[in-house]
Formats: sequence, C-alpha cells, structure tokens
Amino acid sequence: MTKYQLSEKTISTKPVFTGKVISLQIDTVELPDGSRATREIIRHPGAVAVLAVKEGRLLLVDQFRQAMGRCELEIPAGKLEKGEDPLEAARRELQEETGYSCGKIMLLHSFYTSPGFADEIIHLYLAEELTAGEMALDEDEFLEVIEASFEEVQQFIAEGRIADAKTILAAYIWQLQLSQQPEHGQK
Amino acid sequence: MTKYQLSEKTISTKPVFTGKVISLQIDTVELPDGSRATREIIRHPGAVAVLAVKEGRLLLVDQFRQAMGRCELEIPAGKLEKGEDPLEAARRELQEETGYSCGKIMLLHSFYTSPGFADEIIHLYLAEELTAGEMALDEDEFLEVIEASFEEVQQFIAEGRIADAKTILAAYIWQLQLSQQPEHGQK
Repeated sequence: MTKYQLSEKTISTKPVFTGKVISLQIDTVELPDGSRATREIIRHPGAVAVLAVKEGRLLLVDQFRQAMGRCELEIPAGKLEKGEDPLEAARRELQEETGYSCGKIMLLHSFYTSPGFADEIIHLYLAEELTAGEMALDEDEFLEVIEASFEEVQQFIAEGRIADAKTILAAYIWQLQLSQQPEHGQK
Repeated sequence: MTKYQLSEKTISTKPVFTGKVISLQIDTVELPDGSRATREIIRHPGAVAVLAVKEGRLLLVDQFRQAMGRCELEIPAGKLEKGEDPLEAARRELQEETGYSCGKIMLLHSFYTSPGFADEIIHLYLAEELTAGEMALDEDEFLEVIEASFEEVQQFIAEGRIADAKTILAAYIWQLQLSQQPEHGQK
C-alpha cells in the first residue's frame, strides 16, 4: 500500500466553536475506499515546553489543571503568542513561570500531543546556563516552582503527580543524558 | 504557597458540543485570588498505545491524520471503548492494527496528552512475546504496518515522519532499554 492510498481528502469543514485558546471544527473526509467519514478536529495555536536542569535539579511548576480537576507537576510550558518565534516563547515561558533566564537554548523535539483529534504541537527545548530572576505570571496563572532531583522526579512519576506526556518525555531525555554522562551522575 | 492556594473552584459548566469522539465544555472557575476565568475543556474517552519490538524492530503504523493533513508513523494506538479495561484495549488495538498478539503485556505509564485543555489520558503498554496474525481494522481505518530498526526510528524522528509525543516517548523508553541491555544491542 502506498502513501497515496492512505490519504483522506477533505470534502467540507464545518466550524463549530472558536474560543480564546482552541477552536473546534468537523471535517467530512473521503476515505481511501471512496466512502465518507467525519473527523472532529481541535485547532490550537501550538506551545513550547522547557527542559531545564539547575545543579542537578529539574525545574517543575505545580499548577491546577481544570481538565483533570487537580494540581499537576509539569515542566515549564505555555502557548505560543500570535506570530511568536517558538525559541523566544520558550525563553519567555521559562522566565515568566520560574524566574530563570538561560544562556543557551536548543530545540530537542517538536511533537504533536494528540494527533487523533488535535493539531496542537509542542516545541520542547533544552535550556542551559540558568540564571535566577523574577517570575512574571499571567493574571489568571497561579503556580509554584519546584526543583526536583532525578530520584524525586522518578517518585513524582510513580505517584502520578507528574502525569503528562511532555514532562515524562523530558524526564526520559534527562535520564538518558545522565546515563551518557556518568561524571555528572544522578544526584 | 500551599496546594490549597493553587486550586481553582468550578463555578459553572456549559456544554458546547458532544461528538462521536470528543466533547467540548466551557467551565467558569474561581481562581485562587477570588477572580474568575473561563477554561475551554475537551473531554475524551482515553486511549491506549503499545510499545512492541519484534526481533529488534519497532512496530509502527502509518496512517493519515486529518488534524495535520498528512500521514504519520505512530506506535499502535486507539481509543478505549466504553467500559473497556485499558490492558485489554491495548491487546485489542495491537492485534487489530498490526495483526500481532502478545504473550506478555505490562503498563509503562499513564499520561495526559494535553493537560492545558483536554482530559485525554493514554495508557502506554509494553507488549512482548509477539505472534503474527491477521489485522482487523475498523471500517474507517486505513493504515500500513512498518517494522523499523532503532536507526530507522531515529531517522523517522529526525525527518518528522514520527512526530507525536507517545511515539517519541516510546522511542526513548526503547533506547533506554537497549542502553541497559547491551547484549541485545542496537541492530
């Protein structure tokens, strides 16, 4: 089977909702066999997330997540502003949410979070050469910064306090870095 | 700042849309400082995904994703059916999408994909002792199975053909397994 034969053709798009953050549309598509189906699609502006380790401790933010109805520990992250460069957004979110600015920053991965129903993409950066400073939260944003050792991060994952894909992914990247740089060992 | 002070209180919930897969609601919440904000929330039934390696090759499925408008290579995955046990769903999706059944299966992680706006949770399983069989796709599902070596997976990630969080996370877990079991080396 070739790629061509897997493609779906968009027949129509019906806008259903446009919100502050997301919008929802229903697409009618023609399937490879010529039949039709509908797809519920969420449009999202995209986001950035930052893997930042300060003296052997991962920077995490504790914040309430209404979708889950509870607090979660996640790496610093936030939505892209309109037209914003993802790298600048990553610097901005790191500084706003944790107070830290960074001397070096590089893209690790850009990934879709929920390809079955949403186009949200997260650009995950590695930030290094961290310098402490002042936080600058949005007015509807309340969070607490936690700096966690590798063992604490593993414990948070085991307990479910860390329970989102980007943060677990960042923890694996950190673990792999540590395993490849034994001189910086796991503290 | 204590956990209590980070909590948001739901004042009201307005249903906006109920679809085949997702539903959308707008919650009005009271923030920790007493002010109010709205949150756009997607409800999703949850999903499973399967990390399965057959003779040093990762099982991937190539399928068209309407949200991105292109094909993506992902590990086998699918939505939970109503009342379905996630472990049984993982066995089912692996078999339906790839034809393989598994002798052993264990939960690696359960993670939220987009905690900022959705309650979708993915239960990621490791499947072992794989036995080939017949695929059984849903009627609106068209996909191709690809078995990729570790180096091919890295190449797919670099090229963006693998570009979703669960599959990149699975690739890191596999890499860590390989690095810890040098006798099974990277082929």
